[in-house]
Amino acid sequence: MEIIITKTAGFCFGVKRAINIAFRMAREKRKGVFTLGPIIHNPQVVEKLTEKGIVPIDTMRTKKDIRALIVRTHGIPLDVSQELEKKGCEIIDATCPFVKKAQYYAKLLSEEGYQVVILGEKNHPEVKSLMSYAGKHAIVVNAQSSLPRLKSRIGIVVQTTQPLEALKKVISDATAHAKEIKVYNTICNSTAQRLKETAHAAAKVDVMFVVGGKNSANTTQLTKLCKSLSVPTYHIETSSEIRTTWIRRAKKVGITAGASTPAWIIRDVENRIRDIGG
Amino acid sequence: MEIIITKTAGFCFGVKRAINIAFRMAREKRKGVFTLGPIIHNPQVVEKLTEKGIVPIDTMRTKKDIRALIVRTHGIPLDVSQELEKKGCEIIDATCPFVKKAQYYAKLLSEEGYQVVILGEKNHPEVKSLMSYAGKHAIVVNAQSSLPRLKSRIGIVVQTTQPLEALKKVISDATAHAKEIKVYNTICNSTAQRLKETAHAAAKVDVMFVVGGKNSANTTQLTKLCKSLSVPTYHIETSSEIRTTWIRRAKKVGITAGASTPAWIIRDVENRIRDIGG
Repeated sequence: MEIIITKTAGFCFGVKRAINIAFRMAREKRKGVFTLGPIIHNPQVVEKLTEKGIVPIDTMRTKKDIRALIVRTHGIPLDVSQELEKKGCEIIDATCPFVKKAQYYAKLLSEEGYQVVILGEKNHPEVKSLMSYAGKHAIVVNAQSSLPRLKSRIGIVVQTTQPLEALKKVISDATAHAKEIKVYNTICNSTAQRLKETAHAAAKVDVMFVVGGKNSANTTQLTKLCKSLSVPTYHIETSSEIRTTWIRRAKKVGITAGASTPAWIIRDVENRIRDIGG
Repeated sequence: MEIIITKTAGFCFGVKRAINIAFRMAREKRKGVFTLGPIIHNPQVVEKLTEKGIVPIDTMRTKKDIRALIVRTHGIPLDVSQELEKKGCEIIDATCPFVKKAQYYAKLLSEEGYQVVILGEKNHPEVKSLMSYAGKHAIVVNAQSSLPRLKSRIGIVVQTTQPLEALKKVISDATAHAKEIKVYNTICNSTAQRLKETAHAAAKVDVMFVVGGKNSANTTQLTKLCKSLSVPTYHIETSSEIRTTWIRRAKKVGITAGASTPAWIIRDVENRIRDIGG
């Protein structure tokens, strides 16, 4: 059996950086260091960190003694970080630098008087953080949205993990509404690259494994892509989920993984498949 | 026989304004007043003005004593107007205010450091005038172009008579190249409105007449549109071209006209059709 692992499977630059920051905090053994929400969309990594004392909290309304907060790759809303600073809580900023850039552009467009349109998923924490920078007339749309009535000067920024096709569609729709459009294409290259390599691998294999958190948007996107290419595709979090029957007759197996999947989980999956495949 | 004349047939705001300026000059009987190229793409109007002493010249390299020059709706390149001013020639500016706006935005985008992309027909005088404002890295593209290698910051302006679909395509293509795109949609509403009404009329009639100069881009566009809707369509300049056989069996006849077609020519066409139709 041949196994193809995509080169871009696993941690991207921003996630690597955030995880390094979190584990460094764990090594320093400081008291009262939390993350707001899981640091990445991967339960196994979050569990490891929790064991080492870096615990995620869901809300700031807690009785815990929060002395420092690690901001995860998605960033946090401006008002939340201002509130934290007011309370004397130290902010350890692990926001992905590409998300930071998108936040900056959202703010800039708003200051330049544009109505800011954010392409992304409304409930995603990255989009919530972008919204907080985008001024009071800002709206969130996705590729399925039909645009509401817009102002005549539109500024567009994009959740970093959106596909380029979605951006093309939204710009095209906005062109019929607005007289002036300014677009910052803040789509992260690594997402596009991962999608491209995954499609390439999926076209060559009998079975495809997508490894990553079930709550990870970019992992789910990879699964969708593979399924759309009519390859039998399994979205798994760990090797323990793999059933022998899935790969019994496969000659070529592909593995890809989301940006929040650690290398050791991918290796585990590879080993398990090799064990079954013989 | 029923005759449907589109409401937007004939002179648009900018053409009306330019023609008024030219005829006012004719009434003032000043010596040495010329237009650079025909004032509008309509030979009949140009002939009338020539009779009254407002003569088009093709080039500034002439032995004629040019004291004043009427700039037509399309505008003229910046360097030409600077050269004229240097020579002491008075410029009577009949550039369409919407074209002026597009020139202004081309200049603004260039000053803001964008590589300016002009959507339009390379050899059209309006596009040539826009190019002169758009900085040294500017390029012209049309809807059929595949984009060349672009810089990462792109500014787009549009020849005022381009269709919206062409703009959507160019923006969509540019999105794959550039990280930042600023678009001024300088498409003139009256063009879009005229196309829409013409399509509406063409869908209801047995024969369609498009009245206007054979060298008029927007009239030619109307003809193309009607033909694409499978209606027998005739592009004529004057009523004298109409053949009886064209409308012998028609119950409903449609008339539309380009932005440079005067009302009296449209009336003439209507009368001639009524004469034939009985």
